[in-house]
Amino acid sequence: MIIMKTDATQEQIDRVVEEIEKHGLRADVSRGAYRTVIGPIGDEGRLPFDRIAVFPGVREAAMVDVPYKLISREYGKSFEELEHMVIKVGDVEIGGEEPVFIAGPCAVESKQQLFKIAEGIKKAGAHILRGGVFKPRSSVHSFQGLGAGGQEKAEEALEWLREAGRKFGLPVITEIRGETQVDLVAEYVDIIQIGARNMYDQDLLTQVAKKGKPVLLKRHFGAGIEEFLSFTEYIAAEGNKNIILCERGIVPVGKGKSYTRYVFDLASVPVIQKETYLPIIADPSHATGRRDLIFSMSCAAIAAGASGLMVETHYNPAEALVDAQQQITPDELKDVIDACRRVRKAIVS
Amino acid sequence: MIIMKTDATQEQIDRVVEEIEKHGLRADVSRGAYRTVIGPIGDEGRLPFDRIAVFPGVREAAMVDVPYKLISREYGKSFEELEHMVIKVGDVEIGGEEPVFIAGPCAVESKQQLFKIAEGIKKAGAHILRGGVFKPRSSVHSFQGLGAGGQEKAEEALEWLREAGRKFGLPVITEIRGETQVDLVAEYVDIIQIGARNMYDQDLLTQVAKKGKPVLLKRHFGAGIEEFLSFTEYIAAEGNKNIILCERGIVPVGKGKSYTRYVFDLASVPVIQKETYLPIIADPSHATGRRDLIFSMSCAAIAAGASGLMVETHYNPAEALVDAQQQITPDELKDVIDACRRVRKAIVS
Amino acid sequence: MIIMKTDATQEQIDRVVEEIEKHGLRADVSRGAYRTVIGPIGDEGRLPFDRIAVFPGVREAAMVDVPYKLISREYGKSFEELEHMVIKVGDVEIGGEEPVFIAGPCAVESKQQLFKIAEGIKKAGAHILRGGVFKPRSSVHSFQGLGAGGQEKAEEALEWLREAGRKFGLPVITEIRGETQVDLVAEYVDIIQIGARNMYDQDLLTQVAKKGKPVLLKRHFGAGIEEFLSFTEYIAAEGNKNIILCERGIVPVGKGKSYTRYVFDLASVPVIQKETYLPIIADPSHATGRRDLIFSMSCAAIAAGASGLMVETHYNPAEALVDAQQQITPDELKDVIDACRRVRKAIVS
Amino acid sequence: MIIMKTDATQEQIDRVVEEIEKHGLRADVSRGAYRTVIGPIGDEGRLPFDRIAVFPGVREAAMVDVPYKLISREYGKSFEELEHMVIKVGDVEIGGEEPVFIAGPCAVESKQQLFKIAEGIKKAGAHILRGGVFKPRSSVHSFQGLGAGGQEKAEEALEWLREAGRKFGLPVITEIRGETQVDLVAEYVDIIQIGARNMYDQDLLTQVAKKGKPVLLKRHFGAGIEEFLSFTEYIAAEGNKNIILCERGIVPVGKGKSYTRYVFDLASVPVIQKETYLPIIADPSHATGRRDLIFSMSCAAIAAGASGLMVETHYNPAEALVDAQQQITPDELKDVIDACRRVRKAIVS
Repeated sequence: MIIMKTDATQEQIDRVVEEIEKHGLRADVSRGAYRTVIGPIGDEGRLPFDRIAVFPGVREAAMVDVPYKLISREYGKSFEELEHMVIKVGDVEIGGEEPVFIAGPCAVESKQQLFKIAEGIKKAGAHILRGGVFKPRSSVHSFQGLGAGGQEKAEEALEWLREAGRKFGLPVITEIRGETQVDLVAEYVDIIQIGARNMYDQDLLTQVAKKGKPVLLKRHFGAGIEEFLSFTEYIAAEGNKNIILCERGIVPVGKGKSYTRYVFDLASVPVIQKETYLPIIADPSHATGRRDLIFSMSCAAIAAGASGLMVETHYNPAEALVDAQQQITPDELKDVIDACRRVRKAIVS
Repeated sequence: MIIMKTDATQEQIDRVVEEIEKHGLRADVSRGAYRTVIGPIGDEGRLPFDRIAVFPGVREAAMVDVPYKLISREYGKSFEELEHMVIKVGDVEIGGEEPVFIAGPCAVESKQQLFKIAEGIKKAGAHILRGGVFKPRSSVHSFQGLGAGGQEKAEEALEWLREAGRKFGLPVITEIRGETQVDLVAEYVDIIQIGARNMYDQDLLTQVAKKGKPVLLKRHFGAGIEEFLSFTEYIAAEGNKNIILCERGIVPVGKGKSYTRYVFDLASVPVIQKETYLPIIADPSHATGRRDLIFSMSCAAIAAGASGLMVETHYNPAEALVDAQQQITPDELKDVIDACRRVRKAIVS
Repeated sequence: MIIMKTDATQEQIDRVVEEIEKHGLRADVSRGAYRTVIGPIGDEGRLPFDRIAVFPGVREAAMVDVPYKLISREYGKSFEELEHMVIKVGDVEIGGEEPVFIAGPCAVESKQQLFKIAEGIKKAGAHILRGGVFKPRSSVHSFQGLGAGGQEKAEEALEWLREAGRKFGLPVITEIRGETQVDLVAEYVDIIQIGARNMYDQDLLTQVAKKGKPVLLKRHFGAGIEEFLSFTEYIAAEGNKNIILCERGIVPVGKGKSYTRYVFDLASVPVIQKETYLPIIADPSHATGRRDLIFSMSCAAIAAGASGLMVETHYNPAEALVDAQQQITPDELKDVIDACRRVRKAIVS
Repeated sequence: MIIMKTDATQEQIDRVVEEIEKHGLRADVSRGAYRTVIGPIGDEGRLPFDRIAVFPGVREAAMVDVPYKLISREYGKSFEELEHMVIKVGDVEIGGEEPVFIAGPCAVESKQQLFKIAEGIKKAGAHILRGGVFKPRSSVHSFQGLGAGGQEKAEEALEWLREAGRKFGLPVITEIRGETQVDLVAEYVDIIQIGARNMYDQDLLTQVAKKGKPVLLKRHFGAGIEEFLSFTEYIAAEGNKNIILCERGIVPVGKGKSYTRYVFDLASVPVIQKETYLPIIADPSHATGRRDLIFSMSCAAIAAGASGLMVETHYNPAEALVDAQQQITPDELKDVIDACRRVRKAIVS
């Protein structure tokens, strides 16, 4: 990490970048309110930090030895004196004072279904509309989302999503499953979601990052926190720091019946907030897989410090094509949101 | 499970018990406010439920096929129309309206240390005093608690604990490590704790249960919920239903650095509340192993619905002989307790 | 699953396929030595099996309720009376009498390096040459393989691989990281490898499957066996049954130092052989991450019944750019191969 | 660890021990064929190694910083120049050239059952007879072993075990569940087994160790290797180094159906052999819980280097009171033993 002086010139910055590239690395240039910081991307061991430290315009040059440098608290503090970043999507602020609620159906099934739900979650107080178009299902024999029906069907579903978002004043988010969908999805949504199963897909992370739009990245259920942040770094390395992290449960351990789909690792929320400046939200729907636990675990996530929640919502969960047993109704969502707001107040007052 | 009629006579009850014992099983007789329920202990497959169902005084006789019958919600509802049991220890109610806070040092080190901490936690608002006398350490080369110094030292430490409790009006709890300590410990404390590592020790569970005192049982870090409740049943099978369960984290999963000692499985709180009528509390100190996460994870546990917390507290954590990095000060405890009370209000209002 | 009569006509087969498609599913038509079997792809619940069962030419029609139907032993037995499939790659048979050894460097570093290693592994008795061109690294700051240097560099490295294979009479295999590499890689290699981290990438599985070449699919370290096989089904659903499975370790569990990178779940080998007709090999290099354990765990994998091994090999492990600590030399490989052959004899005689 | 000179006198040894005890630690004095080594038990940080190093008779004094010092390879090499210890039980050598087979029923059910099985396993080539008298069951409602029927029944079953062992020339082993059984069990058996669930029971480890008889300690299914060895140290700290370790599977990870009861972590075998001088065997019956996997996983365990196996055997598995689905017949055991012997030859030749 190379911290430039406040009055460093563009030329001086360029010279540092040049030096980094000369050694076969790339450079991330972060221009903050306070100063510019340059983060080398690649094996820092090859860089002559001693020499760079005395380049004109350089205040400090030092190796950072976590695998997630560009998203670390330390890096954030250097260029922005920022502890936690607020990501703005339309009027919504993620990582700010108020918790943010992303809601909507697991899968978009029809225009009518989507609009009805969008209306419901808006009334319930949610801020962002989610709707799955490409569903990353475990079984090839399960419904793969309308997006699996070909380009035309995918566009139609994405169009509904955008329209519903505009009609009810809700930014929209959808999950992307493969590299070939990046251009299409980026055109329609405000936030691109990379699901847990794709967290390890470096090429997808890179392609999505390049679009410059905010990215919501879910933690893979087999990933330790260090691994989660290391893969997040693939997005940051493309110069895109508009990243929202999401805890959604890790693999269950132990013999016998599993009462929840995954283990909701809520301690990851404060841990990640201490490690990076990125906001982190939580997804109680996938973590538990049980409607009857959403209320409790939503409150718990907010109490743990999460900046928001993603909650699967359907006006009639029983008839949902996917994840019927884990979706709640807009009315139930309202109770969740109200309680979460009270919990947030309880922990900051 | 055999549910007796409201007006069943003792003789009728005895006859059912006799019948159960005739088939080689034992019988748990729970006399509730509403009626008496008899739970067979052993392989129910051997019992002639059809015949028992028509015994005089029997309202209903049916097999229950979870391995935790005597502590199940269903059983609780039968004899007491009770969904959740409140356990009284002195003036303290565990499982009632208000969350209960158990605090104190990981290990009792000296009388002076214990009294100073007892005073501190009382002021902070805690209800019960904990203090380890027999420490179940991973390494034989670590400090094993004053109790390891022989009978006399153990009694001295237990005496301090009782005295400190009386002085500051706090019921006391300590952990038991082996069967030979049962009689001694039961004499001095109000609640007997069985630690996570001993959860699988059936003989210890049985011996402790027989003392009739309230038992706090921690979930082993390798145990699924079903296993946790199955072992809890060993206590109930001795006729002792004064059981407080405690979630304290399960084994971490995944490669790389572990940022917390265990994974705090907070969804186990509402899950267990749906499965049994027993109160469940949580232990953020052992679950996280990090002082700086206690506040967040305490709030999260209460938000998840826990009936209370066990928090390691020391006036000077840095000099604690055991678990220095996970204990908080009485002042910090006060913040935790105050916030938790606000969170509790937030979720019930 | 619809099993046709031995003398079923093409017309009769077409009619079944048509019926399946009419209900919105796709059909896998497997023509075996004994008869043709048709596997519906999608939600079988929608199919009128009763009606199809009486279509002309149909011997049997029944729902299969595992999420991996097309690769199940049952399905394999229906069309081929086959318990285990042998996959031929050039002269090499995977899944046959003799264990097959895939060896080579973790990453292709230079033409000279690759040829030297190819020569070494050939002498040691290996059958197939591996060499990583696109490396799916955890950290964006690590060496990503020559393939990351752009199309030209990638082609150059793939060309070396093909050339080395031809020179030493070894079919070649390399890992693919993203959908955009499918066409390129398929042109150069005999087997396409999908690594553990990409196991969940349905779109990649589908794209690779369509190439028709044998596919080696590694189990993700967070995946249960059922999940592993469910994702394998995505490949089979494209009509490509030339699939080699590979066990390479699952996430470690438990506190404290991890002595191996992953937990080598060798029982998955016989389990998977009972569930599917596909051959399964094992990768002791990634599973353990330790050179000094390769010999023991290779022997153990063959003893467990694995059809072969993938072992990272380098003439000078210490100077390897990736995974230095887990590669063995060609000489050591020879010892491993010789011992494994003796072990194979020991378990079948 | 203090290594004495070859010609150190008893007085010089005593002085070192005295010095150690003066600082509040205990001392393990291991008199080997080559020299005497003294291992401090407790916090070594308190010892003045510099001073002790110049005591007369002392060759070397140094701190060892693993939590398992007394069982470490390093310690073993110091006093005995021994890499691996061979434990003799009657004529049987555990940890020697030949793999050792421990077999018998999960639970002793009757004299007739036990003798019939003992005869069967003897013919099959097994060396040691196992038979459960005290069964540590997950459910209080399951059969707890004849030992649960009271002192008299327990003695009767233990008597049968001893008798069967003598009749067929087989040393015997049984599991102990609680501290109160230590005296009784030690009287009847040649090896005392501490089961996985009791691995964390420090007091039981200590009590059993004091009996001086060989101890077989199973790894808990939630324990990392470091933890397993740390608890093993509790036995060694009592001066008893006749310890046989046993791998029997760790908790399964991942969603969905679990095809085996536990994950058989066979890499722990060579890992532990590199860390300690103690022999390690494996238990495929509990690890897999499946009869049809015993053959494969037994061969795999021996190939991984295990010094032997413990295999549950019953002449009629279907009628066994406990673990019916994981026991094999004496005939099947013979096949396992024969194959394992061939595998052992295959890996050492």
